[in-house]
Amino acid sequence: MQKYRVGILGATGAVGQQFIRLLDGHPWFEITALAASERSAGKPYHEAARWVLSTPIPERVARQTVALARPDLDCDFVFSGLDAGVAGEVEGAFARAGYPVISNARNYRLDPSVPLLIPEVNPDHTALVAGQDWGGSGGFIVTNPNCSTVGLVMALKPLYDHFGVEQVQVTTMQALSGAGYPGVASLDALGNVTPYIGEEKMRVEPTKLLGTLRDGQIEPSSVTISAQCNRVPVLDGHLLCISVRLGRKADPEAVADVLRAAASPLDGLNLPTAPARWLHYHDAPDAPQTRRHVDLGDGMTVSVGRVRACEVLDVKFVALVHNTVRGAAGGAILNAELLVKQGLLRPRAVTA
Amino acid sequence: MQKYRVGILGATGAVGQQFIRLLDGHPWFEITALAASERSAGKPYHEAARWVLSTPIPERVARQTVALARPDLDCDFVFSGLDAGVAGEVEGAFARAGYPVISNARNYRLDPSVPLLIPEVNPDHTALVAGQDWGGSGGFIVTNPNCSTVGLVMALKPLYDHFGVEQVQVTTMQALSGAGYPGVASLDALGNVTPYIGEEKMRVEPTKLLGTLRDGQIEPSSVTISAQCNRVPVLDGHLLCISVRLGRKADPEAVADVLRAAASPLDGLNLPTAPARWLHYHDAPDAPQTRRHVDLGDGMTVSVGRVRACEVLDVKFVALVHNTVRGAAGGAILNAELLVKQGLLRPRAVTA
Amino acid sequence: MQKYRVGILGATGAVGQQFIRLLDGHPWFEITALAASERSAGKPYHEAARWVLSTPIPERVARQTVALARPDLDCDFVFSGLDAGVAGEVEGAFARAGYPVISNARNYRLDPSVPLLIPEVNPDHTALVAGQDWGGSGGFIVTNPNCSTVGLVMALKPLYDHFGVEQVQVTTMQALSGAGYPGVASLDALGNVTPYIGEEKMRVEPTKLLGTLRDGQIEPSSVTISAQCNRVPVLDGHLLCISVRLGRKADPEAVADVLRAAASPLDGLNLPTAPARWLHYHDAPDAPQTRRHVDLGDGMTVSVGRVRACEVLDVKFVALVHNTVRGAAGGAILNAELLVKQGLLRPRAVTA
Amino acid sequence: MQKYRVGILGATGAVGQQFIRLLDGHPWFEITALAASERSAGKPYHEAARWVLSTPIPERVARQTVALARPDLDCDFVFSGLDAGVAGEVEGAFARAGYPVISNARNYRLDPSVPLLIPEVNPDHTALVAGQDWGGSGGFIVTNPNCSTVGLVMALKPLYDHFGVEQVQVTTMQALSGAGYPGVASLDALGNVTPYIGEEKMRVEPTKLLGTLRDGQIEPSSVTISAQCNRVPVLDGHLLCISVRLGRKADPEAVADVLRAAASPLDGLNLPTAPARWLHYHDAPDAPQTRRHVDLGDGMTVSVGRVRACEVLDVKFVALVHNTVRGAAGGAILNAELLVKQGLLRPRAVTA
Repeated sequence: MQKYRVGILGATGAVGQQFIRLLDGHPWFEITALAASERSAGKPYHEAARWVLSTPIPERVARQTVALARPDLDCDFVFSGLDAGVAGEVEGAFARAGYPVISNARNYRLDPSVPLLIPEVNPDHTALVAGQDWGGSGGFIVTNPNCSTVGLVMALKPLYDHFGVEQVQVTTMQALSGAGYPGVASLDALGNVTPYIGEEKMRVEPTKLLGTLRDGQIEPSSVTISAQCNRVPVLDGHLLCISVRLGRKADPEAVADVLRAAASPLDGLNLPTAPARWLHYHDAPDAPQTRRHVDLGDGMTVSVGRVRACEVLDVKFVALVHNTVRGAAGGAILNAELLVKQGLLRPRAVTA
Repeated sequence: MQKYRVGILGATGAVGQQFIRLLDGHPWFEITALAASERSAGKPYHEAARWVLSTPIPERVARQTVALARPDLDCDFVFSGLDAGVAGEVEGAFARAGYPVISNARNYRLDPSVPLLIPEVNPDHTALVAGQDWGGSGGFIVTNPNCSTVGLVMALKPLYDHFGVEQVQVTTMQALSGAGYPGVASLDALGNVTPYIGEEKMRVEPTKLLGTLRDGQIEPSSVTISAQCNRVPVLDGHLLCISVRLGRKADPEAVADVLRAAASPLDGLNLPTAPARWLHYHDAPDAPQTRRHVDLGDGMTVSVGRVRACEVLDVKFVALVHNTVRGAAGGAILNAELLVKQGLLRPRAVTA
Repeated sequence: MQKYRVGILGATGAVGQQFIRLLDGHPWFEITALAASERSAGKPYHEAARWVLSTPIPERVARQTVALARPDLDCDFVFSGLDAGVAGEVEGAFARAGYPVISNARNYRLDPSVPLLIPEVNPDHTALVAGQDWGGSGGFIVTNPNCSTVGLVMALKPLYDHFGVEQVQVTTMQALSGAGYPGVASLDALGNVTPYIGEEKMRVEPTKLLGTLRDGQIEPSSVTISAQCNRVPVLDGHLLCISVRLGRKADPEAVADVLRAAASPLDGLNLPTAPARWLHYHDAPDAPQTRRHVDLGDGMTVSVGRVRACEVLDVKFVALVHNTVRGAAGGAILNAELLVKQGLLRPRAVTA
Repeated sequence: MQKYRVGILGATGAVGQQFIRLLDGHPWFEITALAASERSAGKPYHEAARWVLSTPIPERVARQTVALARPDLDCDFVFSGLDAGVAGEVEGAFARAGYPVISNARNYRLDPSVPLLIPEVNPDHTALVAGQDWGGSGGFIVTNPNCSTVGLVMALKPLYDHFGVEQVQVTTMQALSGAGYPGVASLDALGNVTPYIGEEKMRVEPTKLLGTLRDGQIEPSSVTISAQCNRVPVLDGHLLCISVRLGRKADPEAVADVLRAAASPLDGLNLPTAPARWLHYHDAPDAPQTRRHVDLGDGMTVSVGRVRACEVLDVKFVALVHNTVRGAAGGAILNAELLVKQGLLRPRAVTA
C-alpha cells in the first residue's frame, strides 16, 4: 500500500513532537512536511525544535527542513498540533485550500459542522464533514477532545449506553505535560497541587461527544457535569475521580461488569493505533495508578477501576488517561485512521 | 504560671516527633516524659528516634531518656501519638490510671463517651468527658479527627451553621507525610497518584463532629458524605475538592462571604496554638495551593478558596489543611489548651 | 533454534521483575522456572509478586507457579536477582548442582575465579570460568558489576585503552530504583539529596574489570578511584560526574573524539540485547540528562558528554547509565548472550 | 535605635522577595522603598509581584507602592536583587548618587575595588570600599558571592587557615530555586538531573574570597578549583561533594575536628542575621541531607559532614548551603550588618 503523505502543523511544539514520535514507522502514514512558525522555518528540524521527549528524534525527521505553516505543503492531509492562538486561522486556511485537517487544537471543537471525535465513542459523527463548507475545496476539519475529556467520556460511554448517565462529578489530577512546554514552572510544580485549570471544556465537550447524530446535526446529550481540575506533580497521565448518577439504578458490581465487558466499535477494523483494549478494568483495589498504568496500550488504553457505591450519587470510580497520547497526538492519529477506513481520507491529487 | 508537665506516648514516631517540635517553647506545657516501645525504652531520645523533621531535636529532649509506655509517667497528662495497633490498650491503661489522654489515634474516636474534638467546631462536646467511666480514676480520653476530616469539617462548619449542609462530595489529594514514616515507598510516590486511602472515616467522623450535644450524648448530623481519597507526591498538606448541597440555596458569592467572615469560638481565649485566623479565604483564583499555603498560621489555619457554582450540587470549592500539624499533633495540642481553659485539665496530685 | 530454558532466582524482587520484563520475547532464552523464598513458593507469580513495573506482567509468567530456590529447577541455567543476604549460599548450591549462574548479586564479584563481566569491556575474562571448582559439576558463576560501576567503567574503557587512566574522581547522582523496593522511603526521597551510598565497590570493582587476564588470573589495574555517591530523587538512571588523570596528556577534543569513535568488541556478534551503540556521545552542552537519555538503546547504552578540561586532573565529563537495565538485569542477560557465543553456555542434559 | 531605611532594587523578583521576607521584623533595617522595572512601577507591591514564597507578603510591604529603580529613593542604602542584565548600570547609578549598594548581582563581584564578601571569611575585605571612585558621592558597592561559592568557601575556610588548601574538586547538586522564577521548566526538572550550570564562577570567586588584602588590594589565593555543577529536583539547598588537596597532610579526623571547632570572627558581634553556628558539623554518616538540614540557622548555617580520606587528593567531604538565604538575600543582609558594625554604613543626610 502506498502510504499517505502527511504534514505536521506546529511540528516543533510539544504536541508536534508527539505526532512525530508516534508516526515513526506508522504503516499507513509517512511524514512529508513539517511546518511551524517563521522562527523555525528554513531550519533543519533538529535545530528548529527543542526536543523534549526521551526517545531520539527519528533520523529522517531530524534532517528534514521545517516549512512555514502555509497551505502549500506537499502532503495528502495534515495533523495540527498548533496552539489555539493561531490554529483557528491556519487550520481554516488549510481546509479552504482543500486539505483535510486532523486537529488537536480546541478552536473548532464546538463548531456544529466539525466532528469532535473519539473513534470508540462516536464514530458516526464523522458524517458531519459533509456539511462543512470550505468553498468546495474538498478540505475539512476533524478534532479530538481535550485530554481530560477523552478519559472521562471513554470511561462513561459504556455506562451511558447501558444504564444512562444523568449527572457526573469529576475531580481531575492532571499531569504537568498537559500544560505543554515550557509550561508549568518547576517552582510551581514540585511538591505542590494547583487547583486551577479551566473546567468549562469538561462540562461542554462531553455533551457533544455523547450526543446523537440526527439529520446531519448533533443533538447534545443532556448529561450534567461538574468538574474540579487540578495540576499535580506527575509527568504524564490525568487521573479522574468520578461520581455518577445513573439513569437506571445499578449496583457497583453490575457497573464494573459493564466496564469490564465493554466492546469497541473498532474491534475487527485493525486500525494500527487502536489498542488491544480501549478500556482496561483493573481489579486491584489500588489501581489504576498514574505512573504504573499510564502506558497501557502504548498510552491509548484508558484504565478504569475502583467502582464502588457513591453515598451522594450512585457509583464512583477512577479513570486514567495518557494525556499526551490518547489525549492529544495519539487520539488524532486514531481519528485519521478511522477516516481512512470510512473512505473520508483519500490521497490528494497533485497539482501539476 | 506553673507549666503542665506532659508526657508523649509514641514519642519516637512521626506524630510523636511533631508533638516534640510543636511543644518546644510552649508557654503552658513542658515535656517531662517520653514513652515508646521496648525497642526504644532506656535510650536517650536522640538515639531512640530516627528524627525526620527539618528542625533539630530540641536540646533538652535529645538527652532525655525514653521510658516504656506504662502508666507510671511523671506528668499531668499525656499526648498520644501511638499507632492504632497499640493505642486502644495503652490509652485505656493510662485513663484507668487517672491520666487525661489527649490522643491523635483513631481507636476511641467513635466511642460515644469520647469527644472527637475540633475546638473551633464543637468545643461543647468536651462535656462528654463526664460520662467516661475509668473506674473513678479521674482519667479520660479526648481525640482529634483524622487529618483529612479536620480540613473538611472546618471548611464546612460556617456553611453548616449558616445555610445547612445536606450532601458533600469530596476528593482528596493527600500528602505523603499522612502515611507516617517510613510510610509510602518512594517508587510508589514519585510522579505517581495512588487512589487508595481509606474513605470510611471521612464519611463517619464528620457526622459526629457536626453533631449536637443533647442530654450528654452526641446526636449525629444527618449530612451525607461521599469521599474519594488519593495520595499525591507532596510532602505536607491535604488538598480537598469539595462540592456541597446546601440546606438553603445560596449563590457562590454569599457562600464565599460566609467563609471569609466566619468567626471562631476561640476568639478572645488566647490559646497559644490557636492561629490568628482559623480559616483563611483566598481571593486569588489559583489558591490555595498545597506547598504555598500549607504553613499559614504555622500550619493551624485551614485555607479555603475558589468558591463557584456546582452544576450537580450547589457550590464547589477548595480547602487545604496541614495534615501533620492541624491534622495531628497541632490539633491535639489545641484540644489540650481548650481543656485547660474549660478547667478540665488540672495538675495531677503527685502520689507520695 | 531451540531456546535455552532459563530460571530466575529471586523472581519476585525488583531485579527479578526486570529479568522477567527483559526476557519477554527474547529470541534465545525462555523462562521455564521462577524461584523465590518460602513466602512466595507455591503461588502463581502474579499473586506472589508485588509487580512494580509500568508494563504488565507477561501473561505466561503471571500464571506460572513460583518454586523454592532449590537446585532442582527445570532449566539450562539461572539468572540470579537474589539479595546479597542469601545469594552466596543459594548461588553456590546451584553451581555445585551443575547450573551456570549468571548473577547480579555482589557476593562472588571479587572472587578471583569468578568473572566480573561487562561484555564490551572484558569479554576475555570469561576464561576464569575454567578455574572454578564446584566439585566437577560443570556449574559456574559469572557476575556483573554494581550499577554505578558499569557506567563508570564503560565510559572509562576507551580512554583507558587509548590514553591510559591513572586517577579518577567520580561523584554519582543515583536513582531511587537503585535501592530496590520498597527501598527509600518517600519522605527521605522527595526534594532531598542523601550523600550516603557505599563507595567502596566503586573503588575496587573497576580495578578488576580493567584488569588483565594473565595465566588464568586477573592482574588488577592500578587505576586509583575516589567516589562520592549520592541518592537523588529520580526514578531510573545514575548520572556520574567524572574527572580523570590520563596516562598520556590529551586535550578535551581528542578525548571526546575517542569516546565518539569507540568501537565495541561485540560489533558483528548480533547479541540480541547489545544496543546499536554501547556508548553514545552527546554533543549538546546540556546532555546527557537523566530522564531524557536513560532509555537510549532500551537502557543498554551508556551516555557520555560534556568533555572539558579539568583544572585539577586532566579532563572531566559526564556519564549516564540505566541502573536497573544495563546496571542489573540487562547487563546480566548480555553476559549470558556472550557466554552462548563463546560456547560456555550449553543446554543441560536432562536427568532421566 | 533609629532603624536604617532601606530600599530594595528588583523588589518583585525571586531574590527581592527573599529580601522582603528576611527583613520583616529586622531590628536594624526597615524597608522604606521598593523599586522595580517600569512594568511594576506605580502599582502596590501585592499587585506588582507574583509572590512565590510560602509565607505571606508582610502586610506593610503588600500595600507599599513600587517605584522605578532610579537613584531618588528615600532610604539610607539599597539592597540589590537585580538581574545581571540591568544590575551593572542601575547599581552604578545608585553608587554615583551616593547610595551604598549591597548587591547580590554578579556584575561587580570581580571588580578589584569591590569587596566580594562573606563576613565570616573575609571581613577585612570591606576596606576596599575606600578605593571606590563614584565621583566623591560617598556611595559604594559591596557584593556577595554566588550561591554555590558561598557554601564551598565557608566549608573550606577553616581548612585553608589551618592546613592550607591547594586543589579542590567539587561537584554540586543545586536546587531549582537557584535558577530564579519561573526558571527551570517542570518538564526539565521532575525526575531529572541536568549537568549544565556555569562552572567558571566557582573557579574564580573563591580565589578572591580567600585572597589577602595587601596595600588596599586583594592578592588572590592560588587555590585551584575544578567544579562540575548539576541541577537536581530539590527546592532549596545546594549540596556539594568536595575533595581537597591540603597544603599540609592531615588525616580525616583532624580535618573533621577543625571543621567542628571553627570559630567565626563574628562571634560576639551580635549581628542579627548571624546564625548561632556559621558551620554545623554533622556526625551522622548520612548527613547533611538537602531537605533535612537546609534550614539550620534559619538558612544561614552551612552544614558539613562525612569527612573521609580521598584516594586521589587528601580528604573528601560534603557541604550544604541554603542558596536563596545564605547564598543570596540572607548573605547580603549579613554583609550590611557587618558594614554597620564597621561604621561603613551610616544614615544618609536627607537632602532638603
